[in-house]
Amino acid sequence: MAEKTPITIAIMTPGDMGHSIGQVLLSSIKNKFRIITNLTDRSERTQKLSNLAGIIDVKTDEEIIQQADFIFSILVPSQANSVAQRFAPFLNKNKHIIYVDMNAIAPQTVRSISTLFSYGNFVDGCIIGPPPGSHEHIPIVYLSGEHAQKIADLFQFTDLINVSVIGNEIGQASTLKMCYASLSKGITAIATQACITAKFFGLEEVFFNELKQSMPNIFEKLNKSIPHMPPKAARWAGEMEQIAKTFENIGLSEKMFQGAAETYQFIAEKTPLGNEIIEERKRGQTLNDALEIMTQSLKKKTYDE
Amino acid sequence: MAEKTPITIAIMTPGDMGHSIGQVLLSSIKNKFRIITNLTDRSERTQKLSNLAGIIDVKTDEEIIQQADFIFSILVPSQANSVAQRFAPFLNKNKHIIYVDMNAIAPQTVRSISTLFSYGNFVDGCIIGPPPGSHEHIPIVYLSGEHAQKIADLFQFTDLINVSVIGNEIGQASTLKMCYASLSKGITAIATQACITAKFFGLEEVFFNELKQSMPNIFEKLNKSIPHMPPKAARWAGEMEQIAKTFENIGLSEKMFQGAAETYQFIAEKTPLGNEIIEERKRGQTLNDALEIMTQSLKKKTYDE
Repeated sequence: MAEKTPITIAIMTPGDMGHSIGQVLLSSIKNKFRIITNLTDRSERTQKLSNLAGIIDVKTDEEIIQQADFIFSILVPSQANSVAQRFAPFLNKNKHIIYVDMNAIAPQTVRSISTLFSYGNFVDGCIIGPPPGSHEHIPIVYLSGEHAQKIADLFQFTDLINVSVIGNEIGQASTLKMCYASLSKGITAIATQACITAKFFGLEEVFFNELKQSMPNIFEKLNKSIPHMPPKAARWAGEMEQIAKTFENIGLSEKMFQGAAETYQFIAEKTPLGNEIIEERKRGQTLNDALEIMTQSLKKKTYDE
Repeated sequence: MAEKTPITIAIMTPGDMGHSIGQVLLSSIKNKFRIITNLTDRSERTQKLSNLAGIIDVKTDEEIIQQADFIFSILVPSQANSVAQRFAPFLNKNKHIIYVDMNAIAPQTVRSISTLFSYGNFVDGCIIGPPPGSHEHIPIVYLSGEHAQKIADLFQFTDLINVSVIGNEIGQASTLKMCYASLSKGITAIATQACITAKFFGLEEVFFNELKQSMPNIFEKLNKSIPHMPPKAARWAGEMEQIAKTFENIGLSEKMFQGAAETYQFIAEKTPLGNEIIEERKRGQTLNDALEIMTQSLKKKTYDE
């Protein structure tokens, strides 16, 4: 089948993950893609990331609909529904445009969102791994739904992003993300609580020594993940709430991930580390430094008898 | 200092962990120790484990007080306080006997228990690792409190149990246990939820493949820990509640470990795996088999839209 070139992909929004995916697609094959977005009312940081990536600001949703073949929704979980609501009425008049929700949301949330698209021009996706750009850590985009293969094909020109179609049902890609993130980010939430507690009681040295002996892989993981997490804590809190909903929906306890959300909210809102920005880190860049600041931010400074 | 031989240690109670510690102490050096207990009203299984280990049933608490130099409390968390209440009045008249709480309980719980012992003849302890008996997996007993070294000295004749005195304060050993168990058993609780969810949606193969690629150590851990956990799930639920209290007490979220408690309660009470006994496992001995049974036990059999 002959395809029009360039293929135009709108990325909403070009934040940490979105701008990197746009950049990698643009550099994957010359003149194959145009990446557009609407930066109206976006932060200065997002505007800067977007411009650097070579993403074109078309300024309105109407213009996106005029130009786009595909719309990628790459957002914090809390905005997934509202952005889909913004675009769905247009896509119900322009059924050639496929909308891909790549967000970390519960399967029931993505199924609910998909019903907004009356022609079924909707694909469920998720991204596992870091923003693309390095050959060392390659993320994978999982896709599910009737049109999933069409999205997978867009990534065939780059070796910086892997892609996998896992089924025909909306919800499958999102479920996989929830299960995966519950482990990767859930372990970091637990480790953060455990390390803060050990530090609070002056036991961090003996705790770390025990972990190095009996759980060396876990120690290595938390040693990296705890200092790297604070600038992402606010976003992760919303993702933890989606995981809680996923588990609750099939009759499992929702509390573990409501608690993980509270743990990340504490880091984002109650410690000075929550204000750090990925590119401009100043504080908390080693495990000990991060724990020192987190422990000082506890609302109780002494324990009850 | 000359010590009387044999040294008499009462173990309350000689369950999975307690009888193994008794057995290892008895075999550590000939005629150095007598291990006693009170098996009145104990289960047939505990009586059998105790007899096989060479532990002597002296039948009453009064007789334990007559004979013991040390009392080791090795119990499910919910019984730690009531057994201490049973023995404390006797120990306040027999201050030469040292009571060691080795249970997985919150630091504020063990500090509260310690106040029952008016002569301070009380040591805080915890056990990290499996029941002793194998040179491959050697547990470590951590101890804290004024008399901790006296307890550490009892283990000098065996290389099947390591021992470490970590401080002079009651609560330090228990805090360390809470931090450690929050990682070891918290990860298993998360993994159990994640794997049940993947299985429920028919995504276990793609989920396990992703984990094998990007988190091989975690996959290896859950592949062992999920099938091994069910006979211990009821005991672990109580331990998770103690971890929740530990974190809450310094101002962190209590929900993650209330949720972990609910996860283990589900396995113990709502699945047929909860009735399995460690020595006589019949069902759920592989990851896939365990997940199949757990998924069938979900209270919701279909998901809500």
